[in-house]
Amino acid sequence: MACCCIAKVQTPISYFRAAAANSRHSFPNSSITAFPPLHSPFNHPMKSSNPRSLSVSTTVAAAPPTFSWDDVVRVSQPEFNPRDSSDLRGYFDKIKTCNRGAELQSEFLPFVIEDQIVGYIHKSFAENLKNFEDVFISSENDSVGGILTLHRSLKLADDRTRAVEEVIKCLAENGLIPGIRNELYPVTSSYGSPVFFSLERAAAPYFGIKAYGVHMNGYVEKDGQQFLWIGRRSLVKPTFPGMLDHLVAGGLPHGISCGENLIKECEEEAGIPRILSSRAIPVGAVSYSDIDGHRFKRDVLFTYDLKLPESFVPNNQDGEVESFKVIPVNEVANIIKRTHFFKSNCNIVIIDFLFRHGYITPECFGYLDLLQSLKSGDCS
Amino acid sequence: MACCCIAKVQTPISYFRAAAANSRHSFPNSSITAFPPLHSPFNHPMKSSNPRSLSVSTTVAAAPPTFSWDDVVRVSQPEFNPRDSSDLRGYFDKIKTCNRGAELQSEFLPFVIEDQIVGYIHKSFAENLKNFEDVFISSENDSVGGILTLHRSLKLADDRTRAVEEVIKCLAENGLIPGIRNELYPVTSSYGSPVFFSLERAAAPYFGIKAYGVHMNGYVEKDGQQFLWIGRRSLVKPTFPGMLDHLVAGGLPHGISCGENLIKECEEEAGIPRILSSRAIPVGAVSYSDIDGHRFKRDVLFTYDLKLPESFVPNNQDGEVESFKVIPVNEVANIIKRTHFFKSNCNIVIIDFLFRHGYITPECFGYLDLLQSLKSGDCS
Repeated sequence: MACCCIAKVQTPISYFRAAAANSRHSFPNSSITAFPPLHSPFNHPMKSSNPRSLSVSTTVAAAPPTFSWDDVVRVSQPEFNPRDSSDLRGYFDKIKTCNRGAELQSEFLPFVIEDQIVGYIHKSFAENLKNFEDVFISSENDSVGGILTLHRSLKLADDRTRAVEEVIKCLAENGLIPGIRNELYPVTSSYGSPVFFSLERAAAPYFGIKAYGVHMNGYVEKDGQQFLWIGRRSLVKPTFPGMLDHLVAGGLPHGISCGENLIKECEEEAGIPRILSSRAIPVGAVSYSDIDGHRFKRDVLFTYDLKLPESFVPNNQDGEVESFKVIPVNEVANIIKRTHFFKSNCNIVIIDFLFRHGYITPECFGYLDLLQSLKSGDCS
Repeated sequence: MACCCIAKVQTPISYFRAAAANSRHSFPNSSITAFPPLHSPFNHPMKSSNPRSLSVSTTVAAAPPTFSWDDVVRVSQPEFNPRDSSDLRGYFDKIKTCNRGAELQSEFLPFVIEDQIVGYIHKSFAENLKNFEDVFISSENDSVGGILTLHRSLKLADDRTRAVEEVIKCLAENGLIPGIRNELYPVTSSYGSPVFFSLERAAAPYFGIKAYGVHMNGYVEKDGQQFLWIGRRSLVKPTFPGMLDHLVAGGLPHGISCGENLIKECEEEAGIPRILSSRAIPVGAVSYSDIDGHRFKRDVLFTYDLKLPESFVPNNQDGEVESFKVIPVNEVANIIKRTHFFKSNCNIVIIDFLFRHGYITPECFGYLDLLQSLKSGDCS
């Protein structure tokens, strides 16, 4: 999701824009100052931006954004923009930010294993794979034309994993795949289908594989009002430093169930003990499809709600969260609507929460379109 | 949704099958004893039926099914089929029952007003409209071929409503549109778009217009366990007599908001006063697309949850509900999975409830497919 929060500052309140001049990586089709080209899958595209929408520029390894919790609180107040209470345009904007470049899909070749499309690889990026002809093979398929596949000698999942891993290492050493995580994602055509091999997480968008994650909204109820626990990502985190985040979220590595992964992430990210985290409720899934240069993200996030005791205070264990704050849900809604402070895919998961808990009503213009847009990607 | 619960009895427990010999209406492509041809939009079609799945045959104006509340309770118990707890096939089966005949769409002509497709009319049914050439016009459209539209003299919504109403009356007198309700539905291309005219509710599926409704799950929490209030439809109701139903549900007529309509239905169907019903939470929407002979249902149901006090007991005001019963949610899940006791579209709304409240988990095979299938129709 690198660069998907890059956005032109849309208001005079430009101090919210972080300096991003020290970005280590640059990708085609994005820039620091221009809003990236957006796919518009909705029936009611925004004709104009929300006049009081706030933006923050950041990118992979960018300097952290300069907003403070005080800024977050200020912009979240109803009086900051009293007229946008039933206006869904700020939400549509965030969905679009996660679903760019649909018109560029023809630049990608299907990545096919055992007659199943498991990913999409950019034609230019595929040029780099030609040097590894004992691993990657260009081929023609009757129905889809040019495809990439694995060498037919690689029949076993473990062999494929090892062979591709060597290629990834070479590409990483040449700066073509930044930010190696040493974490393996399963390569599959859809969730629950056979896993053909495992792939380094940082390489996932370059191979356009489906990637799955678990995202949890941790909330508190007090005197009939709901509050969400919001994290602020560590300022030294390589991706989206300093941006707002869920209480708990993580990618789904190979070989662990969603439920067990969530419990593990709850412990690491927020110090939530199993006795509490095991009460988290799976509530569905959201998806998005984002093309950004050579990267094609096809993510599905399993969503969870956890109602926490009023007395609970999260405590990050792994150094990835700088601080937490508990905020009334209607004020979180305003932050999403009015700013780009949240890591982009968190917006989708929180909008899903807003739907399920009645903060967005059928009387709002665009209700069904926004609801459908929560699964803009292939949600399988 | 006539006939969509017609199903071959699949088990030896045949006493659950109601006599349906006195069905007043018969439609092409369905019969009393054969399971209707089903569209299979899912990646994991059921290879075999659940061996202990129960069915009940009924149809519009059929004799009521013969099951009792005791039968409902018996089949809902875990021990009735201890092995189906994480098996989603019974749910997929109910989704399919609401989404038949996708392969028959070519038998329908688009119904176009002001360049917007507002419905679909079966080619054979359209023959009946040729007698009303001052109202309905056959025409050719460059992009979609043959279409039906309204006479160009009918420019105002009120004029269209009156002219079409006269046609519907004639067709009804000739038995071509049974069960006139004297209730008007808005004709529109999507929710929130301009309303071109209003159409008698009973005619909606013959013109294939989008139809909207509100469905509410009324539930109670007691000692950490959730219970759903379930209604049993009146035995003399013309549609789906004696079948299980939500606590509150209703079509969305022209000129009333979802929220206000729900409050009205709460009062009429379950005697829920506004002070309680105004706490109902809108939680999303489901949709289905069902072709049954000349009828094309394209329904979108706005879904609501209402948490009721333990002490509340529903009290039907309009004679449409025979009785109510409060049942643990996991037992309601078993009823849906194992029987066709519920009015078919209620199954979808309750499966949506089961997802949002964590009764169906990502560890169940087919989780994402089932989740997506809740919006099998055009949900706009």
